[in-house]
Amino acid sequence: MKPVAIVFDLFGTLLDIASLRTAAARYTSDPAAFVGTWREKQLGYAFAATIMDRYEDFDALTARALAYAAARHGLSATDRDWERLAAQWRRLAPYADAPAALTALRAAGAACAILTNGTPATAHAALRAANLADAIDVTLSVDAVRVYKPDPRVYASVTAHFGAPAERIVFVTANGWDATGAAEFGLRVVWCNRTQAPAETFGAAPACVIGGLDELSAAVAKLAD
Amino acid sequence: MKPVAIVFDLFGTLLDIASLRTAAARYTSDPAAFVGTWREKQLGYAFAATIMDRYEDFDALTARALAYAAARHGLSATDRDWERLAAQWRRLAPYADAPAALTALRAAGAACAILTNGTPATAHAALRAANLADAIDVTLSVDAVRVYKPDPRVYASVTAHFGAPAERIVFVTANGWDATGAAEFGLRVVWCNRTQAPAETFGAAPACVIGGLDELSAAVAKLAD
Repeated sequence: MKPVAIVFDLFGTLLDIASLRTAAARYTSDPAAFVGTWREKQLGYAFAATIMDRYEDFDALTARALAYAAARHGLSATDRDWERLAAQWRRLAPYADAPAALTALRAAGAACAILTNGTPATAHAALRAANLADAIDVTLSVDAVRVYKPDPRVYASVTAHFGAPAERIVFVTANGWDATGAAEFGLRVVWCNRTQAPAETFGAAPACVIGGLDELSAAVAKLAD
Repeated sequence: MKPVAIVFDLFGTLLDIASLRTAAARYTSDPAAFVGTWREKQLGYAFAATIMDRYEDFDALTARALAYAAARHGLSATDRDWERLAAQWRRLAPYADAPAALTALRAAGAACAILTNGTPATAHAALRAANLADAIDVTLSVDAVRVYKPDPRVYASVTAHFGAPAERIVFVTANGWDATGAAEFGLRVVWCNRTQAPAETFGAAPACVIGGLDELSAAVAKLAD
């Protein structure tokens, strides 16, 4: 059955978090480790904020996680530098396979959307900077429901927006815990497993696993059969 | 004001998770990395289970996380081996400073308790194996409320058990996110920062930070002033 929409996670799926390393290299000799801590803490705070029912938006948590990662890795910089570094989330590089994947889906008539932990402002800016904005019909943010993925209320905002049952929505994510959460909710999940990570062993399995977005059109066609 | 009880986190606070490396060394040449992944995934699944409202007990999540970590690090073993390895959570070594800290608190007349993500069966077995069981008055598990730390309902089970307001309970943990969650709830938190990690930058700050449990008696006396 043809999907009503193809919904993408943004950070780590269409946009490459590792591209932060270029800007981070100005402040640390090990930008990969620093960016790893930053991302891990950003997600850890998003999980904690949801469990503790103490929402702050993703821009705020990103800045908090940056301060933690800077302390952990011994970076020193000015407030202005930290602001500049945090603003790099609005200028992440797209994965090389992202533009063509979106173009192919749209040529096939699919509606394409974003479901992101990010704030609407940061998500929109990042999509524009990556030249992907024109390929996206709508950007949905957790900010509307004030809890983070993998809370089912986040995935429910997609079915509510499209007025469609969960099984008519394809959700594409590179994050294993996001794939699990969306699959638990009932979305048809394509896990873009770029790093050949092991399958998650808790929660529902994705409908399909691909190695990169170049495999997405074929995967979506198969799911629609 | 004298606290009604001193409540300890178990794994990583009284018991040393790194002691799993000895048993793990039979299956991998890098037991530290393997145990690191195992613990990280165990907590990740606990957070996900809470956010997704899909509780499974900590023994089940520990086994799932073990399967993931084994796949990630390329370990191969029999089902019997995995069971034996997972059972090591019931035989973790206590930190060298744990027994004396508990003895000193009890000599001062304090009630000592455990609040753990672990199942009651595993927590009790681990306390007995570590020779700490006699020093503990009561062991409270998240299993009673079916959500994991840092959900406020977990910390509320402590105030409910002791029939005391949160500010009369001292909570001791080595886990930063646990310290934050308990402090948000209102417990008087002692963060045992064994690794000199940076302070968490999200959520309420602990009442006090110590470098090891040898500093605990003095810290509790000061909080009671």
